[in-house]
Formats: sequence, C-alpha cells, structure tokens
Amino acid sequence: MLPRSPCAAPRPVDEFELIQRYFVRDGEARGVTTGIGDDGAVLQPEPGREIVTVIDTLVEGVHFPADMPPADLGYRCVAVNLSDIAAMGGRPLWMTLALTMPGADEEWLGGFASGLHEAAAEHDVSLVGGDTTRGDAIVISVQISGDVAEGAAVHRSGARVGDTIYVTGTLGDAGAGLALLSAGNSDEYLLQRFLRPTARVAAGQALPGLASAAIDVSDGLLGDLQKLLDASGVGGEIRLEALPLSSDLKAAFDKKSQRRFALSAGDDYELCFTSSREVPDKLGGVPVTAIGTITDGDSLVCRNHGEIVELADSGYRHFQ
Amino acid sequence: MLPRSPCAAPRPVDEFELIQRYFVRDGEARGVTTGIGDDGAVLQPEPGREIVTVIDTLVEGVHFPADMPPADLGYRCVAVNLSDIAAMGGRPLWMTLALTMPGADEEWLGGFASGLHEAAAEHDVSLVGGDTTRGDAIVISVQISGDVAEGAAVHRSGARVGDTIYVTGTLGDAGAGLALLSAGNSDEYLLQRFLRPTARVAAGQALPGLASAAIDVSDGLLGDLQKLLDASGVGGEIRLEALPLSSDLKAAFDKKSQRRFALSAGDDYELCFTSSREVPDKLGGVPVTAIGTITDGDSLVCRNHGEIVELADSGYRHFQ
Repeated sequence: MLPRSPCAAPRPVDEFELIQRYFVRDGEARGVTTGIGDDGAVLQPEPGREIVTVIDTLVEGVHFPADMPPADLGYRCVAVNLSDIAAMGGRPLWMTLALTMPGADEEWLGGFASGLHEAAAEHDVSLVGGDTTRGDAIVISVQISGDVAEGAAVHRSGARVGDTIYVTGTLGDAGAGLALLSAGNSDEYLLQRFLRPTARVAAGQALPGLASAAIDVSDGLLGDLQKLLDASGVGGEIRLEALPLSSDLKAAFDKKSQRRFALSAGDDYELCFTSSREVPDKLGGVPVTAIGTITDGDSLVCRNHGEIVELADSGYRHFQ
Repeated sequence: MLPRSPCAAPRPVDEFELIQRYFVRDGEARGVTTGIGDDGAVLQPEPGREIVTVIDTLVEGVHFPADMPPADLGYRCVAVNLSDIAAMGGRPLWMTLALTMPGADEEWLGGFASGLHEAAAEHDVSLVGGDTTRGDAIVISVQISGDVAEGAAVHRSGARVGDTIYVTGTLGDAGAGLALLSAGNSDEYLLQRFLRPTARVAAGQALPGLASAAIDVSDGLLGDLQKLLDASGVGGEIRLEALPLSSDLKAAFDKKSQRRFALSAGDDYELCFTSSREVPDKLGGVPVTAIGTITDGDSLVCRNHGEIVELADSGYRHFQ
C-alpha cells in the first residue's frame, strides 16, 4: 500500500480490513448507539432492566478439531454463549469477539463470519466490537451481553428442597454426534446437534418467575447439575429412566452408551432448571421433562427405577 | 478427589477452583447484582447512562514475551482495556476475563491475578465473569464495560477542520522501555512505562463536552491518529517539535530514535484527542500538549519547524 502523504502512517490495514470485510454489518441494531470501529461500543439498555454478560472461549485442539468447518465453528461459539444468557433468563442483545489465529486465511474467515452472524441473527444479536490478533492456534472468545427485567435473572443458587428438576429437549445427542464423527460414521441429526448447538433462548426467557434455579448443560448433566446443587446448598436425585433421549440416539447406541452420553457428555446446551411451580410441557416451543427432585444434603444420587446406580466417568475437566 | 455419592459427578474442579482461588474477590462491587459463579453476571447501570464496552487480546509471543512477569502481564491486560474506555470518555465498571494457558501453574496464576486486580482496583473495576481454558500458548482476552452519560461518549469520528490535536502525557516511553529491555539495558522509568501502562482514565472522563474526537495511542501515534482522521473524514498536520517527550527518553536515545519511538512505537496508552475549545494544561492530573491541527483533505502531514518530513516505518501490523 502506498503512503498517502510524505509521512502518512502505514495503518494496520490487515486487522482493520478483516474486521470491516467479515464482521461489520450495516443497518440499525437493537440498543446500539455506536457499534464496531471506535475504541468501544456505546449501548443503551432500557431503564428498569439489568444487563447480563457472559463469556466463553474455544481453543483449537481442545474444544474443536483443527479441521472443523469454520461456519460451524462460528455458529457454535455464539450458541454456547447464547446458552449461558438463556440459563440466566436473559434476552441476548450484543456480542464482542476476540479472535486469535495464525494468519488471515480469507476462506476460513468468510466461513467463520457467516456462521457467527447466522447464529447471532437468529436471536437479533449484533456484533458491537472485536479484536483480531495473531497466534499459533485459533482461540476464540465470544462475549455476549443481554438484559433481563430488574431482579428477574434466574440464578444457580435458588433451588429449594422439594423442587422438581427439569431439562429442556433431549440429552446426549451432541456427545453421540461427536463420537460418531470421530469414528468416521455419521447420523445427520446427531451430528447437527453437535455442530450446530441450539441455545434454548426462548425457553430461557420463560424461566423468570417460573424457575427457582437454572444452568445450561455444557459440560454434561451430572457435572452441571452438581454445580447448581452446590450453589443452592442442596442435594438432588435424578431418575435415569426419565432422561429424555432422542430416537436417533436410541437407534445408534446401546443403552449403556445412551446413558453415558446423556449424563456426562457435554455440548448439549439444553437448560436444566428447578421449580416448585407447575411447569408447562413446552417452554419456548421446546419439550420440558421432569427428571428428578431437589433433596436435603449436598449429594447427587442417580436411581434407575428406584435403585441407586453407581456411575463412573462424567463431566469435563479443563486442566487434566 | 473422592466421589461424594455413589454417582456424584467428578466436577471440573480445576477451572472452578482456579477461578475461586485467584479471581473471586469478596465484597460489594459497584453496580454488580451478581458477579462470578453463575452462568452470567447481572449488572445494573444507572438510568440515563449508556454502556461502553471494549475488548482486547494479548497473545504470548506476539504481544508479550513468554517470560514476562505475570503480575505485569495481569496489570497490562487490564490497563489496555481501561485505555479504550478512557478514549470513549467512559467510566470503567466491570470486567470479564477469558484466559487460555497450557496448564494450571499456580505461581504464574497468583502473580497474574494480583496484577490484574491491582490495575482493576485503581479504578474500582470488578471482575464479574470469566472463562479459563487449556491451550498451548497463553492467550488473554479482557473485556471491560463502563458507562457514560447518555449521548456523551467521545467518538473517533468527531474531529472538524480547525480543531487542535492534543495528546496526554509523553510519547515513546513504552517503546523505548521495550527496546532497552530487549537490548539487556534498563531505565526504570521507561521500563515501568512499558510494563505498567497507565490508562488515562481520569483524563478520559474529562473529555465529554470538551473533545470533538479521541483515540488511545496503542499502536503508535501516526497509526492511531490516522484512524481518527479516517473516521472523521479529515486530514491533519502535526508539529514534530511539539511532541511531548520525557526527560528519560531524551537522556537514553538520540533525537532520531526519540522521534521514532514517539511517532510509531505502540504501548504508550496516552490519549490523542481533538478540540475546538480551550483545553486546560492538565486533564485528570495529566499534562496535555497541543501537537497539531485538523486540516482539509485526508492525509496526515508531519512538519519539523514548518518543513514537511518524510517518515518511514510506523504503526503495528497484526498480520504481517
């Protein structure tokens, strides 16, 4: 690029142009006074509402394989954050992106940006800021802010003894999809459940006033439910026979594997919540299933038709 | 860790405990209804104010050397974001952290967290959420939200022909400090200017109503001022003899190097702003210097005692 004056500054064109080309979208966006391109975004929430903010990072080789289709990856890194907003009962509004990658691979970026915007557009979320940096591996941090009526946010800590434990949708599909993918097989439904996780945003917005506590199932039901129990200072029992399983999962795996995926595979991005109230069969169009009860104490017990079951592996350990 | 019940979930203890141990601080925090530990934070801005949000990523080997003292790194990754909030005229409030690293190195984490909290505490900023993940290199994304009176945010795009161009503090110190460090020498003041950048938060909060446009000097004056000119659709002239230089910089380097550091070394985190109004000698306790004028056109011209000067390298290119 030629300098534009005797001492014109060679601007950091690459980052700026990358952001302009792939991430800036025209048009008015909800609550956005100033979006991408200044030192910061300027946002205007409604009075009487609170801001909910979440952040999640995906690392190449840890959270996704290097050859994952970039559009799926873009979709995913938005969906996992939308899921956290949903678990708070919030309405997602604005997103920021921190993207580290080895170089400016245009094809990859185009795919990634399209998936990112697709997931965001489904919930009218706008990208209001970002930062692209160079690094050896791809690291993606997406942060989403939303809002919720003042005092209405649903926390992990509100579960009370006697509450019923619910989950949305079906469990284990994403883990099963990943396992099939790794084995070179494929079931389109299960694969899509892994590649394009559906954040339960509409169901989440139905939780304020209905749920006593909620968490999203990202690391596996057992691990995530335990976090909810810990935060609430209670125990819980779940009925294994009540776990909602998809027909595709049941067709592709034996009973033991079905249960393992449903209990301990991550990436489902369903909501797990507790309530003492009458809960409709569906929330935001998604089926809701009662799977257990909040109990005294601090442990999580699994029963199969009444009998206590011992289970080995579960959850996801980031540093092991 | 022993399971706590026949099917107790082995929780992802490491991440959770890391966050608890190093990042959670007790006590009430400004505007924070719910902080770390739920699916998201819940925040309550004042009515009549807007939210300003910024994000910045630091990558090991790209933005900092692998052996950088972790406390300095923690301090720095907060300061660079505070600087963006300052450049918008905002009041910093809340921070989220996405931290990727090879493993849970306790000594490193303790140092990093102490520097992070030190920088945050200087401006009463609280950490409200975060995510730690495993990856080969250290990648740190910090996102800070603040607020500003409705409509008062200072943008890059407001500079008008005839406005005076100002900078806070002195330029080039951080780049000089880094050069000395790389050469195995050291000047305590210059080194500290690199290791512990001082975001001009108080000066930034004096900008609304006073400045027509502002940007922080993170990539180098020439590059950053050019961004401001581009956003405003104007040109500019700067007087090289007017650039504010510290006595330490002048003592350690010859004139040519002084100028190179002041114009094109990054990491100063001073504010560059424009105004048509009378500007005090100091803003938020920091000296302010007039260095040039906004002109017609779109180019940035440097003059030394009136004579146009051609300058070669400057700025920082992320993908080159």
